[in-house]
Amino acid sequence: MFHNIELDKSQPIYIQIKNYFRTMIAKGMLQKGERLPSTRELSMTLNVSRNTVISAYESLMDDGFINVIEGKGAFVADINVSSNSGWHIDWNSRINDYATAARDLDIVKHEAAWKKDMIPMSSISPDPELFPMDDFKRAFMNILSLEGYKILNYGYAKGYKPLIDLLLEYMEGKGINVDGKDLIITNGFTEAFEILLSCLVSEGDSILCENPTHNTALKIMKLKKLNICGGNMSEDGINIEDVKRIVQSKKIKLAYITPSYHNPTGITMPWEKRMELFHTLMSYNIPIIENGFNEELRYFGSHISPVAAIEGNGNSVVYIGSFSKVLFPGLRIGWILGDKSLIDYVESVKRSRNIHTSFIDQAVLYQFIREGYFEKYIKKVRRVYRQKYEDVVSAVRENIPDAKLYGDGGLHVFIKHEGIDSRQLLKECIKKNVIFTPGDIFYIDREVKNTFRLGFSRVKSEDIAKGIKIIGLQIKEMKNKG
Amino acid sequence: MFHNIELDKSQPIYIQIKNYFRTMIAKGMLQKGERLPSTRELSMTLNVSRNTVISAYESLMDDGFINVIEGKGAFVADINVSSNSGWHIDWNSRINDYATAARDLDIVKHEAAWKKDMIPMSSISPDPELFPMDDFKRAFMNILSLEGYKILNYGYAKGYKPLIDLLLEYMEGKGINVDGKDLIITNGFTEAFEILLSCLVSEGDSILCENPTHNTALKIMKLKKLNICGGNMSEDGINIEDVKRIVQSKKIKLAYITPSYHNPTGITMPWEKRMELFHTLMSYNIPIIENGFNEELRYFGSHISPVAAIEGNGNSVVYIGSFSKVLFPGLRIGWILGDKSLIDYVESVKRSRNIHTSFIDQAVLYQFIREGYFEKYIKKVRRVYRQKYEDVVSAVRENIPDAKLYGDGGLHVFIKHEGIDSRQLLKECIKKNVIFTPGDIFYIDREVKNTFRLGFSRVKSEDIAKGIKIIGLQIKEMKNKG
Repeated sequence: MFHNIELDKSQPIYIQIKNYFRTMIAKGMLQKGERLPSTRELSMTLNVSRNTVISAYESLMDDGFINVIEGKGAFVADINVSSNSGWHIDWNSRINDYATAARDLDIVKHEAAWKKDMIPMSSISPDPELFPMDDFKRAFMNILSLEGYKILNYGYAKGYKPLIDLLLEYMEGKGINVDGKDLIITNGFTEAFEILLSCLVSEGDSILCENPTHNTALKIMKLKKLNICGGNMSEDGINIEDVKRIVQSKKIKLAYITPSYHNPTGITMPWEKRMELFHTLMSYNIPIIENGFNEELRYFGSHISPVAAIEGNGNSVVYIGSFSKVLFPGLRIGWILGDKSLIDYVESVKRSRNIHTSFIDQAVLYQFIREGYFEKYIKKVRRVYRQKYEDVVSAVRENIPDAKLYGDGGLHVFIKHEGIDSRQLLKECIKKNVIFTPGDIFYIDREVKNTFRLGFSRVKSEDIAKGIKIIGLQIKEMKNKG
Repeated sequence: MFHNIELDKSQPIYIQIKNYFRTMIAKGMLQKGERLPSTRELSMTLNVSRNTVISAYESLMDDGFINVIEGKGAFVADINVSSNSGWHIDWNSRINDYATAARDLDIVKHEAAWKKDMIPMSSISPDPELFPMDDFKRAFMNILSLEGYKILNYGYAKGYKPLIDLLLEYMEGKGINVDGKDLIITNGFTEAFEILLSCLVSEGDSILCENPTHNTALKIMKLKKLNICGGNMSEDGINIEDVKRIVQSKKIKLAYITPSYHNPTGITMPWEKRMELFHTLMSYNIPIIENGFNEELRYFGSHISPVAAIEGNGNSVVYIGSFSKVLFPGLRIGWILGDKSLIDYVESVKRSRNIHTSFIDQAVLYQFIREGYFEKYIKKVRRVYRQKYEDVVSAVRENIPDAKLYGDGGLHVFIKHEGIDSRQLLKECIKKNVIFTPGDIFYIDREVKNTFRLGFSRVKSEDIAKGIKIIGLQIKEMKNKG
């Protein structure tokens, strides 16, 4: 035996030898008291240095798997090995309604997935090939030498102070009055929205939002068993008449809105309309959760201040920010800016959920922004994505002439086409290696069938026209048939 | 004006100039159409290069804050500034019971905090001065050149595959049969336990656990409004008679146990007792959540396989692991090993909460372990912490002779002392710059007053005897008084 120890270059040899014996012992293939080969013996069998074997045995001894007796050798310690209980729980019958709903609403588990060679118009995550890896490495090394081990130990639920201060400054630059407000770092938008609702709503509460809206937000609202009241989207954002009708007819607890580059429609609400929406909700004392999603990806026109800027010294708008859709989604960093007393509760809930967001990630992101790499990066990607956006728009005009196209920026456009079933369309397009997102998943009751979202962030420039042409031809075909 | 632009070295000059104007404009101190100083003018005023000012203006234009008209200059764009709505929400009245409870149960907000110069016997987090920073940097650089930008984009809810595989191997080495099981990465133990309960329990369900137990686990169980049934701790772990009484008298949904280096008592349950507990729960078909907390910090005796190893090919034990208490808590990485069908639900809930745990953190940790740095580190800290452990034990024997001391390893010991009130003791010791954790926070109803936990991981060796002496003297004093 022991010839079957397979050694590779993947990790230090002594660890591989240790792991081999540890598993043999743990599985009962080496019994209590059994003698291990001498270090000389094994080093020759495996053709490794004797010191390597000695290190492996020392480590096994440290972990309590063997005892080494001077001059006698190494013996398997008295560790007890797994019997076969054969005890089986039927977990499916133990799962509660919440987890069952979470799985039912998990589109990753129910929607068609991108496969190699497909044109990925279903994705709106940033193109990783644009990530400035060297700047990222520099930021990492610099913050590590500045902060040292501090950022590797436990931090604070609210987040890494320098990043919090920097984001407060950033929020002020958007026109938001941060007096009396506080900012907490979260694991991206998803956690921010989920924790806010966990603090503010109870089952059956009514919440106002755009319809369609971000499917992740819909999922979270449904998991909270909220009564979701959707205002339809007009060309310039949520329909104010719908909003008025809803707030008059129902007791609305919260409003959730995405005024810029709305997902999925890509619509940006003009300032006047933001004011009108704000004052409508104010008159009913309905606090607003604003999703600042992708505000950094503005390609045309002047800056439009977020709704949170309208309230001035008020405290009724809670702003959720995130760079995930622009920069390093793998880092999972977002934030909530809101009234101090609200954030104080949010902080305790956050701590009860996962203590805090990775401090090293926060520190690296802070340094990355501080050194100007973020500005540099945004400048670059704006140019690239703007070009792709324009290519998409002209390709749609050319290949899907009867389509209604929405989208003022960001990383996607939204298509409405009378008389087509986007599910059917998707099925056919996947056969031709083009994948996009059917619009129904963004509607509260999945009621609208004739829309779809085209993401372009990860589509190669040369594939944009190609992909949209395939979609266009397929639509023609379906219409001729139909 | 503009002389009051304060420039420092903290970040690139053009960004500081940009931020200055952006904030001036956002706050309405520069009005629509107003002309900015010429780039030449401003570069002289601020004594910076003209290109720096040009970059600042370009960036302001990109963000839509100004328009630059050839030959005319830069003018404030039509961005709308914050009015003062004066709209105020009383957030405290909007917070639900859950968030209120989360804040009430948040010990960080209610317990005495460590202050500079205090001997920190309240902490059980690892000593960051032992973190191998150079190995960490190497692991980071290596994984980044191996994986590139991939690990900075969205990942999978289940986690970074190489780390999952490595941890499965690690679990096998502990004697656990992983067939039919799956492993998901979480943001530490806290998230793992919280999500498991979110999948498996409903308000009012009964759960069995040790009393005392980890206060974070207690908080999470209380936030789920569970009926917490505690079995008292004997010298060798949870009292089996209590367990039998409880499972006979109540319908118990789940059992939560920490068999090794139990927090707060530090007791490690012997193998025979693990078997007995396992079979007792098996006979009532009560699944077990096992907290593998600090198993790496074994100082004496043979390896004792986790309870999850007893079930062999069964599927009824769910194991939660974490390195947070040993290595880099700032990284927030833990895992759940459990039946495939259970993990499938856990994955969907995890995705609905925060999509996934930081991929860069998972990848760096993977590389850190892969290259043998973890083995090396554990070997080092075991030696250091074992020495501290022994110093603590002898100091307690000497200075608190009447105390009952519990704890077989890990980073803390637990003290029971008849006739003392640990809250009173703490109050006095803090005056003398020694802080520890009163035991009551670990008891379900905070009913036990005469215990406290002494953490030593972050106490300097020379302070161990000093701190414990102060506690001992204080106890004497209190007893003489009383």
